Amino acid sequence: MPTYEATSTAPVNIAVIKYWGKRDTALILPTNSSLSVTLDQDHLRSQTTSRCDESFEKGDRLWLNGKEEAVKADGRLGVCIRELRKMRSEVEQGDEKLPKLSQWPLRIASYNNFPTAAGLASSASGLAALVASLAQLYELPQSPSLLSCIARQGSGSACRSLFGGYVAWREGTSSDGSDSLAEEVASRDHWPEMHALICVVSDKKKGTSSTSGMQRTVETSPLLQHRLTLVPGRMKEMESAIASRDFDAFAALTMADSNNFHAVCLDTSPPIFYLNDVSRALIGLVEELNRASKEATGHLIAGYTFDAGPNCVIYALEGNIATVIRAVQRYFPTEAAFPDPFGVLGGKEAGEVDVKGFNVEWSSAWDKGSVKSLIHTRVGDGPRKLGQEESLLKEDGTPKTVV
Amino acid sequence: MPTYEATSTAPVNIAVIKYWGKRDTALILPTNSSLSVTLDQDHLRSQTTSRCDESFEKGDRLWLNGKEEAVKADGRLGVCIRELRKMRSEVEQGDEKLPKLSQWPLRIASYNNFPTAAGLASSASGLAALVASLAQLYELPQSPSLLSCIARQGSGSACRSLFGGYVAWREGTSSDGSDSLAEEVASRDHWPEMHALICVVSDKKKGTSSTSGMQRTVETSPLLQHRLTLVPGRMKEMESAIASRDFDAFAALTMADSNNFHAVCLDTSPPIFYLNDVSRALIGLVEELNRASKEATGHLIAGYTFDAGPNCVIYALEGNIATVIRAVQRYFPTEAAFPDPFGVLGGKEAGEVDVKGFNVEWSSAWDKGSVKSLIHTRVGDGPRKLGQEESLLKEDGTPKTVV
Repeated sequence: MPTYEATSTAPVNIAVIKYWGKRDTALILPTNSSLSVTLDQDHLRSQTTSRCDESFEKGDRLWLNGKEEAVKADGRLGVCIRELRKMRSEVEQGDEKLPKLSQWPLRIASYNNFPTAAGLASSASGLAALVASLAQLYELPQSPSLLSCIARQGSGSACRSLFGGYVAWREGTSSDGSDSLAEEVASRDHWPEMHALICVVSDKKKGTSSTSGMQRTVETSPLLQHRLTLVPGRMKEMESAIASRDFDAFAALTMADSNNFHAVCLDTSPPIFYLNDVSRALIGLVEELNRASKEATGHLIAGYTFDAGPNCVIYALEGNIATVIRAVQRYFPTEAAFPDPFGVLGGKEAGEVDVKGFNVEWSSAWDKGSVKSLIHTRVGDGPRKLGQEESLLKEDGTPKTVV
Repeated sequence: MPTYEATSTAPVNIAVIKYWGKRDTALILPTNSSLSVTLDQDHLRSQTTSRCDESFEKGDRLWLNGKEEAVKADGRLGVCIRELRKMRSEVEQGDEKLPKLSQWPLRIASYNNFPTAAGLASSASGLAALVASLAQLYELPQSPSLLSCIARQGSGSACRSLFGGYVAWREGTSSDGSDSLAEEVASRDHWPEMHALICVVSDKKKGTSSTSGMQRTVETSPLLQHRLTLVPGRMKEMESAIASRDFDAFAALTMADSNNFHAVCLDTSPPIFYLNDVSRALIGLVEELNRASKEATGHLIAGYTFDAGPNCVIYALEGNIATVIRAVQRYFPTEAAFPDPFGVLGGKEAGEVDVKGFNVEWSSAWDKGSVKSLIHTRVGDGPRKLGQEESLLKEDGTPKTVV
């Protein structure tokens, strides 16, 4: 008997034009289009193994980071599995010789290689890896864009993690959500110099979940309606900045849209705050770097963006990322040593800020650990298929690692 | 020879519909109308003595908190003095017997009874006291609204400090600013139960000045344009809430407009932050008090508002202010003892939160001194005329106290 199993990884994506608000909460249809950069799976990824077997006890089972999660039929995982099974069933109906995988119970194990404590949204990469592995298991003919419609129903921004490079999630107009899907705007290879530094910010306060937060914004923020009129133009500007590899335009718009998104959060009742004092100070640092750089060279050096939490993601081109890292290290000393995965710091002293005219007095240094750690990564590819040796499941269909 | 001198005090005002943005920076014409509550001068006030004398050496001189400030002809102080002198000159032209005070040099001393370190904007009360004392010295026939046009040119929100109670600053439409003036919406006696607690928040970071900040918002925030379409409706709602003494509507709108104002600050490029982590936590406390109170009684208990700084002003009715003070004291222990000027805490233990259903676990207590001090005050009257015994000037026209 052959084993029907597939293992895939999917990347994290960080939006530069933000998704905030649903026009349909069941289908997860957004109030506006969004655009993200896919980050390199060499550094951050979710990995999922899916297996189906006629002999499994009835009912699907799923383990997330080694802990079993209930698969509810109308829950987000359940909906994704149901939709992919339906696609498989259609394939089977077209070819009687195919094994009836759609009728067999599933065993799924999923892992994130980054700690939940890092505060990075793992639902996007996690759901994308689930969809990718099931699509591989079921040998589905659907394009990544069509599969992204399924991932979207699991976790809105997961649809963008089905592509590498620069990815748009088109809001669509159809009420069934069939045109609310992701597509590649530009490949990683079009602009591979895009690097990212994730500053993991310590925060004791439990934030508002993005799911409940965004609906509160839709219901109570008068400014959101105006944001929605801005986004179509911003999508075009951002696509054009990426097409022409115009980092100045890319960074300026990334910062403006992050601030615009957090402004509508603040305009919500009760207000939603994701940025804390350290986040604000990181914004201050990037603004000072850009002010000096703009004056010295006419160009911006970096662009910050914040999702539904205090962590700062700073985009910068390959040639400038070391400057950014050194500047962050100077003002936000981390507890953990920086692993320097690209070896960009060699030869220069940590803490030196090599931007002409940079005002080192713009702030004093923060307490050690205000920024917990730094993750240096770059634009990356889409979901990857892994070999059987990477399987997360044991022979009996239970996960290799259990918490 | 008689002495020509006048001493006045003017109150602080805290807006509940915020002023942010000028359509004319020279005349200080705002992009939107605003509305404030005048606070009691028994607790917070600016006091100004103005004297003119033919024998004074040529040129006007002014001391602010005992320190001499240059009076520039085209500066904010100079413009106010010039306009009031012009009004005096018109009075003199109508009656030849009057002394020609308008031609005599001025000596002006002004004091705030609250430390600058409290972070309360002193320019509004200070400019209002200047205008009130000069109008008194010159025996000007102009109404407070017409005088508010002068104060406005010194410091926008100063125009609102020429009235007690509940005060609107009408943006006006005239290009010369003649209809951009303050007027009383309701007197203090109409709704005297309005109390206010000022939570003075410690902040090391030097904030963006409101003068430069608001123009950056006008120039760069796309959301500001939308805010401007909201304000006329909010002004009407607020006036109606005050007319009917509807605290629920007053508090809800006060909080929404404060958040809306800080949202457009955040939408500015570079973004402007006035709220810090302690400010955010104070918002969280009031929201939790209101959530519990709303559930228990159907009514809100308090409304917060923040100007261009981290200090929180909490409005609450007389019957509820003690509850608010105790709740703030529980989570934000101050260094300085609370003077309890109204004696509202007697009999109850500090820190007790007597709102049914209030979740005491909503947050742990902040470090002592995160909120530096608490000032308890209430709605108050407009500028007061003081007797000669309150003069701030010595016989020779120099201030009694010099720094």
